Amino acid sequence: MSPLPGEALQQTISFLMELDKLKRVERRTRLLNHGRLENSAEHSWHFAMAAFSLAPWAPAGVDIQRVIQMALLHDIVEIDVGDVLVYDLAGREAIALQEAAAARRLFGLLPAPQGEVFLQLWQEYEAGISADARFASAIDRLLPVIQNLHNQGQSWQENQISLEQVLTRNASVGEVFPALWQHVQQQLHVAREKGWLR
Amino acid sequence: MSPLPGEALQQTISFLMELDKLKRVERRTRLLNHGRLENSAEHSWHFAMAAFSLAPWAPAGVDIQRVIQMALLHDIVEIDVGDVLVYDLAGREAIALQEAAAARRLFGLLPAPQGEVFLQLWQEYEAGISADARFASAIDRLLPVIQNLHNQGQSWQENQISLEQVLTRNASVGEVFPALWQHVQQQLHVAREKGWLR
Repeated sequence: MSPLPGEALQQTISFLMELDKLKRVERRTRLLNHGRLENSAEHSWHFAMAAFSLAPWAPAGVDIQRVIQMALLHDIVEIDVGDVLVYDLAGREAIALQEAAAARRLFGLLPAPQGEVFLQLWQEYEAGISADARFASAIDRLLPVIQNLHNQGQSWQENQISLEQVLTRNASVGEVFPALWQHVQQQLHVAREKGWLR
Repeated sequence: MSPLPGEALQQTISFLMELDKLKRVERRTRLLNHGRLENSAEHSWHFAMAAFSLAPWAPAGVDIQRVIQMALLHDIVEIDVGDVLVYDLAGREAIALQEAAAARRLFGLLPAPQGEVFLQLWQEYEAGISADARFASAIDRLLPVIQNLHNQGQSWQENQISLEQVLTRNASVGEVFPALWQHVQQQLHVAREKGWLR
């Protein structure tokens, strides 16, 4: 496709075509009752839908629209860096600088005002301090736990994850969804008894 | 996973697990430079990101947050009904009632207030009359055209689509993005010369 008249629109179209690559980034979670690994684009949709659906449980002061925007954007850096398992702490630390560079490259494809909005939203999500970022992050942690509980602990079994790892790495879910997290903790103990978790 | 305490939260978790099935619904478009067919979940993410990225071109009065919400929801009925090609007018007419029933079943899994919000947003999108729905629909039409122009007309070639079909079925894009559509029309004529379109 030849360049468009109007540089800003051309940049935006190029960014959208670059986004297609997120559909090729594989996670460790498989679709329910289906062997295929989930990819980061469809996960981002699922996360955004979870945020939208869980809006009635958002703490006071949370702007659910910004949470949805964070969900849509949060994994775009994986186009350059790939997905690293949430339980691989060393791996995640190692790629933090690469992710920051990927955010600048990818959001920098957009015209300046919109690209800057996206970059700041992504940085706010990564920092994990604001009320919106904390609600978003809790949902991003909750979703694969629920998927695993509905799928015989598939990604836990395949990656030798322990009960303690799941409880520790996802403790922030309990701050946002205390009753749900209490229930999930009980299910996690049952999951270990079944051998789904170490 | 055993039922949660709190029926509304349990209903919401069940809805989110049902949504996983949209990742299995295949469209006719393939990933760029990659053989796999796109699925409706990752397409919905791409569409939501396109709406967010194209926000600066939204006509006055368009609420981009509602457009993003429509993008996230618009294909969920395909969990029950499947995807029908945009150029298959008879096929799309035939499934309209099934889609309406699917929307009631799927959004009906949610607690009443949230499910009603989702159903009304989906119905507004389908009706295609409001400014938000028209902007959303134009982006949903634009995106696969741009994907095809970047992918040697893959889904047009595989489904024997003609230039006239593309121009007619996507004319609404020109109402929202006149300069872009004028440029795309030129590219579509080039695409026919290359044999990508009948």
